[in-house]
Amino acid sequence: METKKLIEQIRSKKSFLCIGLDVDINKIPNHLLHETDPIFEFNKAIIDATHHLAVAYKPNIAFYEAFGIKGWEALKKTIDYINENYPELFTIADAKRGDIGNTSTMYAKAFFEDMEFDSVTIAPYMGKDSVEPFLAFKDKHTILLALTSNEGAFDFQTLQVDEKPLYQRVLETSKTYNNSENLMYVVGATKAEYLKEIRAIVPESFLLVPGVGAQGGSLEDVCKYGMTSNIGLLINSSRGIIYASNDEDFAEVAAKKAQEMQQQMAAFL
Amino acid sequence: METKKLIEQIRSKKSFLCIGLDVDINKIPNHLLHETDPIFEFNKAIIDATHHLAVAYKPNIAFYEAFGIKGWEALKKTIDYINENYPELFTIADAKRGDIGNTSTMYAKAFFEDMEFDSVTIAPYMGKDSVEPFLAFKDKHTILLALTSNEGAFDFQTLQVDEKPLYQRVLETSKTYNNSENLMYVVGATKAEYLKEIRAIVPESFLLVPGVGAQGGSLEDVCKYGMTSNIGLLINSSRGIIYASNDEDFAEVAAKKAQEMQQQMAAFL
Repeated sequence: METKKLIEQIRSKKSFLCIGLDVDINKIPNHLLHETDPIFEFNKAIIDATHHLAVAYKPNIAFYEAFGIKGWEALKKTIDYINENYPELFTIADAKRGDIGNTSTMYAKAFFEDMEFDSVTIAPYMGKDSVEPFLAFKDKHTILLALTSNEGAFDFQTLQVDEKPLYQRVLETSKTYNNSENLMYVVGATKAEYLKEIRAIVPESFLLVPGVGAQGGSLEDVCKYGMTSNIGLLINSSRGIIYASNDEDFAEVAAKKAQEMQQQMAAFL
Repeated sequence: METKKLIEQIRSKKSFLCIGLDVDINKIPNHLLHETDPIFEFNKAIIDATHHLAVAYKPNIAFYEAFGIKGWEALKKTIDYINENYPELFTIADAKRGDIGNTSTMYAKAFFEDMEFDSVTIAPYMGKDSVEPFLAFKDKHTILLALTSNEGAFDFQTLQVDEKPLYQRVLETSKTYNNSENLMYVVGATKAEYLKEIRAIVPESFLLVPGVGAQGGSLEDVCKYGMTSNIGLLINSSRGIIYASNDEDFAEVAAKKAQEMQQQMAAFL
């Protein structure tokens, strides 16, 4: 998907909400467990109920992988369902992959061709030749981990490298990669105060922002420091929406939660 | 698998060879393409022909993922085949995963429980809470990327952080993680001269070393600077062995190549 289309969608829905599909079979409502594919049925119900309130969906690949072949089948059905029924939605494979040259190309094919996701999250540790194979795909987006929302982010990401933190160096270096216009970045909402400096380095890039809500990040702060003239933000919420109810009304309650977030977002647009 | 068992296997086979199963359907011999599962049949033939010469097998997960559900089926059959027929072999899921807490636990379950691999490769960028969930599994090993063999390693891994390169900081910090005795590290053979300093930080840990051969690394240098009293090395070769012939004799030729490497290794034991 072209970035232009994503921006149009954000403006028309007045939402920059991304719903994380971190679907754990142990947490989904009991009545779905009788279905042939409970994970897909759960996703389908959530997507049908929230597609007009969100602009992006982000399956967390680990949760599917953990269920082996059945998990991959559920993932494939989910991405196909979105692409067939709601082609305007932006899709993110939250895979955090990263490997050398031809291996990265294989991962890129898995997510961009076999699965037809619009984007994939990538870890930067292995550098240029692990990222560029993803960037080579036209109208596909590579969402590089810059500053993550977890405690472990302080182990390495914020260490000083030549008088600036490593995550800033990651941002700067990644801008020199071929096709860097296809880059977006993960920046945790729990570190909203860092967004000012991040925007000085990547003034226009889209940021995928986890950590609003459950993890303590503030939507107001993220918008204040991170929003651009083209919005430039995708705010992710996973558990706060998809597990808001564990009952037969789960999709309805998820839609209510998504609407609350959408309305808060509309105020910033 | 306990590390002790791996060391015993190395001593009895006089080999510390790891064979990388980077299986690309476009590169395997034509006659296998008529099989129901060509990738598995290829792996099975390679493993049967080389299991007495190698101590470890390392499927590169990207190559399976790129073939979608069929790829995952081939991977599952491969790991099951090894575990049933050659339980002494050490198995590595070369997945380079890394995500926060509960997501890492899902990945760990995928590779350690659903697939029953002995180990998995992990990227360090997200820090402690992305690595410890893997370390929590008893007799399973977490192989952390330290210094990789590719050109992009110089983008971030070798940058100076507090007067030492980032990869050294990764080694040091990882030693403070819970259950750090379950750690091994990836160190590229193309950077053998760094092994002396690496051994000063992790004197006993096993190192998984890619890059001997095709990428230009020297077995002699790796052994000189990296070997410990318990060997402490797994040298990986992928394409040099598995694609040595593209004909019906591919497994036989692979065995010959593996034997050449095993004999070179025996000289250092």
